[in-house]
Amino acid sequence: MKRILVVAAHPDDEVLGCGGTIAKLINEGYQVYTLILGEGITSRDEKRNAKKRGREIKELRKQVYTANEIMGVKKVFIYDFPDNRFDTVPFLDIVKIIEKLKNKLKPNIVFTHHEKDLAIDHQIVYRAVITAARPLKEETVKEIYSFEIPSSTEWCYPLRFSPDVFFDISKSIGIKLKAIKKYKTELREFPHPRSLGGIKLNAEYWGMRTGLKYAEAFQAARIIR
Amino acid sequence: MKRILVVAAHPDDEVLGCGGTIAKLINEGYQVYTLILGEGITSRDEKRNAKKRGREIKELRKQVYTANEIMGVKKVFIYDFPDNRFDTVPFLDIVKIIEKLKNKLKPNIVFTHHEKDLAIDHQIVYRAVITAARPLKEETVKEIYSFEIPSSTEWCYPLRFSPDVFFDISKSIGIKLKAIKKYKTELREFPHPRSLGGIKLNAEYWGMRTGLKYAEAFQAARIIR
Amino acid sequence: MKRILVVAAHPDDEVLGCGGTIAKLINEGYQVYTLILGEGITSRDEKRNAKKRGREIKELRKQVYTANEIMGVKKVFIYDFPDNRFDTVPFLDIVKIIEKLKNKLKPNIVFTHHEKDLAIDHQIVYRAVITAARPLKEETVKEIYSFEIPSSTEWCYPLRFSPDVFFDISKSIGIKLKAIKKYKTELREFPHPRSLGGIKLNAEYWGMRTGLKYAEAFQAARIIR
Amino acid sequence: MKRILVVAAHPDDEVLGCGGTIAKLINEGYQVYTLILGEGITSRDEKRNAKKRGREIKELRKQVYTANEIMGVKKVFIYDFPDNRFDTVPFLDIVKIIEKLKNKLKPNIVFTHHEKDLAIDHQIVYRAVITAARPLKEETVKEIYSFEIPSSTEWCYPLRFSPDVFFDISKSIGIKLKAIKKYKTELREFPHPRSLGGIKLNAEYWGMRTGLKYAEAFQAARIIR
Amino acid sequence: MKRILVVAAHPDDEVLGCGGTIAKLINEGYQVYTLILGEGITSRDEKRNAKKRGREIKELRKQVYTANEIMGVKKVFIYDFPDNRFDTVPFLDIVKIIEKLKNKLKPNIVFTHHEKDLAIDHQIVYRAVITAARPLKEETVKEIYSFEIPSSTEWCYPLRFSPDVFFDISKSIGIKLKAIKKYKTELREFPHPRSLGGIKLNAEYWGMRTGLKYAEAFQAARIIR
Amino acid sequence: MKRILVVAAHPDDEVLGCGGTIAKLINEGYQVYTLILGEGITSRDEKRNAKKRGREIKELRKQVYTANEIMGVKKVFIYDFPDNRFDTVPFLDIVKIIEKLKNKLKPNIVFTHHEKDLAIDHQIVYRAVITAARPLKEETVKEIYSFEIPSSTEWCYPLRFSPDVFFDISKSIGIKLKAIKKYKTELREFPHPRSLGGIKLNAEYWGMRTGLKYAEAFQAARIIR
Repeated sequence: MKRILVVAAHPDDEVLGCGGTIAKLINEGYQVYTLILGEGITSRDEKRNAKKRGREIKELRKQVYTANEIMGVKKVFIYDFPDNRFDTVPFLDIVKIIEKLKNKLKPNIVFTHHEKDLAIDHQIVYRAVITAARPLKEETVKEIYSFEIPSSTEWCYPLRFSPDVFFDISKSIGIKLKAIKKYKTELREFPHPRSLGGIKLNAEYWGMRTGLKYAEAFQAARIIR
Repeated sequence: MKRILVVAAHPDDEVLGCGGTIAKLINEGYQVYTLILGEGITSRDEKRNAKKRGREIKELRKQVYTANEIMGVKKVFIYDFPDNRFDTVPFLDIVKIIEKLKNKLKPNIVFTHHEKDLAIDHQIVYRAVITAARPLKEETVKEIYSFEIPSSTEWCYPLRFSPDVFFDISKSIGIKLKAIKKYKTELREFPHPRSLGGIKLNAEYWGMRTGLKYAEAFQAARIIR
Repeated sequence: MKRILVVAAHPDDEVLGCGGTIAKLINEGYQVYTLILGEGITSRDEKRNAKKRGREIKELRKQVYTANEIMGVKKVFIYDFPDNRFDTVPFLDIVKIIEKLKNKLKPNIVFTHHEKDLAIDHQIVYRAVITAARPLKEETVKEIYSFEIPSSTEWCYPLRFSPDVFFDISKSIGIKLKAIKKYKTELREFPHPRSLGGIKLNAEYWGMRTGLKYAEAFQAARIIR
Repeated sequence: MKRILVVAAHPDDEVLGCGGTIAKLINEGYQVYTLILGEGITSRDEKRNAKKRGREIKELRKQVYTANEIMGVKKVFIYDFPDNRFDTVPFLDIVKIIEKLKNKLKPNIVFTHHEKDLAIDHQIVYRAVITAARPLKEETVKEIYSFEIPSSTEWCYPLRFSPDVFFDISKSIGIKLKAIKKYKTELREFPHPRSLGGIKLNAEYWGMRTGLKYAEAFQAARIIR
Repeated sequence: MKRILVVAAHPDDEVLGCGGTIAKLINEGYQVYTLILGEGITSRDEKRNAKKRGREIKELRKQVYTANEIMGVKKVFIYDFPDNRFDTVPFLDIVKIIEKLKNKLKPNIVFTHHEKDLAIDHQIVYRAVITAARPLKEETVKEIYSFEIPSSTEWCYPLRFSPDVFFDISKSIGIKLKAIKKYKTELREFPHPRSLGGIKLNAEYWGMRTGLKYAEAFQAARIIR
Repeated sequence: MKRILVVAAHPDDEVLGCGGTIAKLINEGYQVYTLILGEGITSRDEKRNAKKRGREIKELRKQVYTANEIMGVKKVFIYDFPDNRFDTVPFLDIVKIIEKLKNKLKPNIVFTHHEKDLAIDHQIVYRAVITAARPLKEETVKEIYSFEIPSSTEWCYPLRFSPDVFFDISKSIGIKLKAIKKYKTELREFPHPRSLGGIKLNAEYWGMRTGLKYAEAFQAARIIR
């Protein structure tokens, strides 16, 4: 198994959720592709105005490319679904985009959001992924893992992210941090969970719980071997 | 108790979900009505175009009538909510249609989808049914059962369909298979779960687990006796 | 289906849990048998001393017989497992007793405790029942329902009794109350849930939620039809 | 901690859900504000027509003010999201309104709906609240409690409202009943759960389960002390 | 990762639960060890009498060795905890035995029972395994999977086995069936789930749901990579 | 409300679980009592031998007293239930001891273990607490909180500790660490979760998730106000 697709709702989710893991797997020989569905900017306004925010959207896209380059991602695909407003889009449209890319790339592993995340876009993306990658005979996707997004998944009460898969990122935490630093506009100050310190603390925490130095935590949706 | 309403999202769900059970209950003297809410076709296109798909929709409706006739259903009611796009319709509109038909037919038992199904239309229909049939004093519906739809319910991760009600369809499996055969355009090849072989295997499986030859599995939402 | 077995941990559980329902079903022609597994007294002492409590045990048994007679129960079977100490008995011993009686009486319906009840004896009895009545081909038990025991089930945090089956006891609430009155030593003062007022309030509450005057609530473990 | 915000989907939810509790807390010195997001009327029509229902909407608003005055609420904020059609509104719009008011009032406690309620508007409001009040360093909201709405929460199958927080309303039940009486158009006849008798019965029921005369039940989403 | 330990409560559980998978993995180069904790016989008697059943116990052990040999298991370790009476043994004793063997063999993967199985011995073994193999730094066990035991796991109501890991046993189903045939005294007639036909049907069922010909289903407890 | 009882299975659990919180609450004027039920030593041997381990038990008790003194606990009550073998003791015996102490001290708040913890003693203690402190009219206990024990709760798969109550221990973390240091024999090296570094990391982690510097996390069992 050699091809991985990361399906993220917003720029930076791919690094926050599984940046260390994909850096590690790329190092082991995997080819990784990133799909980012939303533009990640316009939810700042009460009425969406993609034009008005055009420069910021462009700027953020640049960050996407640099961050993914650092991790060694082969190619990034970006769509512009409205930030934090995926519920205003027909669910099927999102499914179809994932389906098409999936059919083209034929990945074996998919990393994506968790079903029970605070962010509505994250919830929708998870559902879209399992809808697009049904375990039919001809389906290439054999593993689907849900990641957490610090400052989102853990703020969804009641908590339902219950990880059972842990990747050792002791050797790739550096790359993860380097990649996330590229998302200047998205990072916050510690102790915000979406800060450099917060991301490191989170990795230490999961590491401590699994006998590792640094780890990323996932919940398996489906593994076929 | 003598009147049953099956509330399905798409043509063929009524057979897949509870075809054997209603055939059996009709044989025992129940009157069964089927409500199908969606047209079941247009999700094939990226942009819905009901007109373009007019012939197929018509063709599928014919299959609905024949299949339901085989099972002995008294009357079929078909609406044309957009296939796999029920989330684009106000939820209340779906509730109101179910409510109206329910008030007219005064069924005692309702069979419908399961809350946690892969298909978004299925989820919505379940929620609409329990919203439309609240257990008020004057409510005639005394039993609500959720069925599974092979190739949908079982692909919803994490799995949450946890059946506790089983109907013996050893004598009506033949009718179920005969009815589903009418849905030529919907059937797939074994080992697809929505194939003749798959449907039979599923019934054997639940039968084995409950000491029966063939069974259909349901999860009780509410039973009032 | 005509034969019912109630499997209770302690004297009075059979009335508290399903007294109104069995009175109603007896009236509809069912034959009901009660199995009470524990003696219901000795947990008052720090060290169990069944002899010392002999008179009370005898007295309580008399109450059992009178209460069950009022409800129209055909026969009562009483064992003397140590009150609130079922965990000190091999689980298999309890299973075997239920199994033997079940094989003799060949009931079609079983009413018993709920899996998640505060009382350890209640938990054990539920597990013993589902172990003894596995849905094999030759198994006569086709329906298993879990009841709640006021002042026990509702004090088990987190709450997990989630009823989905409700029996209308509007006509048999009187018999239930008459039967429970026989358990003089077990009743408490209102607002204790195990008081006459509390039992009535509970039945009104479930009634209100299901459009009935008085109801008893159950969670279906398994129904085969 | 001195400021409370009640976030309700419809007029009367604030009284049904936590009327006794806020009356009690106001008496203890808290300042309470009520936010009602929907107009509560137009779902009666198949097509929403807020103009046609203008008079009723106005009338209901008057009831809101009187009812909240009785409880001692400091100020009521009312929006006119479409009744039972919150799913047709971008989720983010609802979040933003809550967020803005929250930032202005800086409440310490929020009472709102439960995640798993039959009414789609209730579900959405809960999600919007936890999205708007994320536990960042600067967040003033330290406690979030979910209430039940009789004739809605308990009709959501499977039942998932599992209260763990109970407020003693023995002294404020009178105010609750007085306030709800103002909602003439919303009240039903007993045994409907949304009747005077039903509301009292419900409070007695939770009281009995917690050693109190009358109680309101809540599920804690988050408490920070 | 090259060493696997199967921890089973009774003879035949190792084949029923994961026979196809271990045959497949042995073929891929893994070394597999089997630990069977109970003698599997004495629960037939009301009072345990291991002596009286000595011959049968010996006979069953022979079946264990032959069956495991067929699958290619390297070594089998058998203990004689009392069949279906593991609850009468201090839980810690079971933990310690697993711990010791685990420390000796240093397996990387463990297959064992599911937490929520009808059989009390199965439940206890699962808990003992996760207690013995805590993810400390020095722990060699990196993957723990729970299997189902036909005629046990599926009869535990409410159902909670929710598999997320599936192994393709299309090529090893033959070995599984050959191995289970050695357990002459344990096999039943179809449609009993613990019959040759039942085992095959079960594998076909999971296969159908995952796009495979035959599959075994597992629930991941923990995976560290 | 002024009196708190901490009910712990083993020496050090009271500090690990809620040491920062009780130090904080003592500072706010609460009186805190600690009940430790087990001796915490003998599980090291295959056969329990309390005599042989007499010296160590005594030594550990000294640590208990010093640690609790540091936190400002008013009085410690220690029992000698067999370490990690609480399942070999009648459950009722444990309940009765808690009940008696509770009736004597009349605490308003109880901190204890979580229902789903890896350690069997922890599970049993939780169940014993909720059995001993049923919310009857005369019950003084109005709040029950479950804590986590690092290196135990988080290793119970599937994870079910889902905290909803967080105490700010930013000012009392120092006392917690000072107290835990007294348990020399129980502490491990970082990154073990039961190390000084691990305990601090855990408090930082929950702090980050709740906008605090350091926090302890709890799950509310029951709060009555």
